[in-house]
Amino acid sequence: MKVIRSIPDMRQLMSDYRLQKKQIGFVPTMGYLHEGHLSLMREANKENDIVVASIFVNPLQFGPNEDYEEYPRDEQADARQAEEAGVDVLFIPTAAEMYPKPTLMQLGITDRADVLCGRSRPGHFEGVLTVLTKLFHIVSPHKVYFGLKDAQQVAVVDALIEDLNFPIELVGLPTVREADGLAKSSRNVNLTDQERNEAIWLYKGLQHGQQLIHRGEQHPDQVVRAVTEIMQQNLSGTIDYVELLSYPSLKPVTTINQQVILAAAVYFDKARLIDNLLLDQNGEIVARYD
Amino acid sequence: MKVIRSIPDMRQLMSDYRLQKKQIGFVPTMGYLHEGHLSLMREANKENDIVVASIFVNPLQFGPNEDYEEYPRDEQADARQAEEAGVDVLFIPTAAEMYPKPTLMQLGITDRADVLCGRSRPGHFEGVLTVLTKLFHIVSPHKVYFGLKDAQQVAVVDALIEDLNFPIELVGLPTVREADGLAKSSRNVNLTDQERNEAIWLYKGLQHGQQLIHRGEQHPDQVVRAVTEIMQQNLSGTIDYVELLSYPSLKPVTTINQQVILAAAVYFDKARLIDNLLLDQNGEIVARYD
Repeated sequence: MKVIRSIPDMRQLMSDYRLQKKQIGFVPTMGYLHEGHLSLMREANKENDIVVASIFVNPLQFGPNEDYEEYPRDEQADARQAEEAGVDVLFIPTAAEMYPKPTLMQLGITDRADVLCGRSRPGHFEGVLTVLTKLFHIVSPHKVYFGLKDAQQVAVVDALIEDLNFPIELVGLPTVREADGLAKSSRNVNLTDQERNEAIWLYKGLQHGQQLIHRGEQHPDQVVRAVTEIMQQNLSGTIDYVELLSYPSLKPVTTINQQVILAAAVYFDKARLIDNLLLDQNGEIVARYD
Repeated sequence: MKVIRSIPDMRQLMSDYRLQKKQIGFVPTMGYLHEGHLSLMREANKENDIVVASIFVNPLQFGPNEDYEEYPRDEQADARQAEEAGVDVLFIPTAAEMYPKPTLMQLGITDRADVLCGRSRPGHFEGVLTVLTKLFHIVSPHKVYFGLKDAQQVAVVDALIEDLNFPIELVGLPTVREADGLAKSSRNVNLTDQERNEAIWLYKGLQHGQQLIHRGEQHPDQVVRAVTEIMQQNLSGTIDYVELLSYPSLKPVTTINQQVILAAAVYFDKARLIDNLLLDQNGEIVARYD
């Protein structure tokens, strides 16, 4: 596995691969890799000739009171795991390499960013759109892989690629979970033991909502209310939101008769956790978004 | 010369050229080609293996009260002239091809867009940034050519390419003028005979400003005042602005001791004309921006 830190080196290598007609799959990450990231890399490895992953904790997508400094980092372990998962090229730029001067360009999106996590993280998706546009231009991949745990991010990237005609295919893959159901997340290490035990109720609450839909509940309000109640009873953290929206357009729905996302976010002391279920109109899990 | 109207056809062809290691030069235009556009195409032809030009009157960059409907169009004449100027591929998409649905993505820029034409054309550069991003992704050129008549556009595209790491080299080429000095523009056809005769004072006014700088005038206010006076005395149209700013950052300067732009815009009855001089610190014309 090649580890590359400079943009010109990366461009040169990717240009060579392209001229060799290699199909390039790309997994952008913020590092501190877990099974969720690795599942994306393995899938990218199956579907492409060359797998590129990036590790970059993007300052632009963190708010002033968010956990940019505390975001966990472990480059050595990441490199070892990425290589085992089939990554051919690991791109690890510094912030100075990615942002040599303050950026004048502003990328935004109407819709899709003002709900769910976007509401409590103003500027977050603007930062995500900016860094992904930069990475897409540096890596020039054929396919790009994201985890559906960040389903709103997938919806936003879907609009980015579609509206701006990026020559890239988007693939969203299922959330990977711990044995007890907690969604794998780099931020889980910042939970106390008690919070870790409770945290499973994010998933249990969403599952209860899914069961209601499965049994025929068509009113989003009823589902959201039931899920919120379960979470309030079992979680000491503060619920940021429980929402049910169409997917990927992320609009409120009056009746559950289309693909929807049931999503929640909870603030614990030193971590904010998110989870969601992407469901078809029958309440069945949607396994792959592309 | 190939004429292509669909995005997938364009992508396929450009991908083939890239695999054949052809260097691609791109000249985006709104059509109604004149000597200004043709000079870009001829230069692109000298510097690249393949020259692509596009003709697309982009609705997104016109304000509600602007001349989108009246913008002159002549596809047949354009195709003939483009071919003579060495264009290999002419891309002419419809608005429905470029915007099959309303775009969710919003591109903006801090600085550079809130002065000169940006001030009187709110939303204009956002529309320019959006359509160019789309075209760059569809054409994937190595080099892109713009006329310095739209010097603010060149400054804005410079930030777009730089900040978002587009793998594209920007080239700005000199304004082409009529025999009497009027900058060539597709909009000149919308001038009355009297306006056409007067319009030369845009250039004459700017030239007077250049002479002042050349003779040692270092105060931008003095230059702007002198230029404005000459234009007011000789033009029946309404002056939109006369400004002197640093280039390409487009910031006010207190002393003329760096590369600057001296620019003006005038509203006539059915056309708004712009012109500028890009000057080095000695008041000499800058012939090429790259």
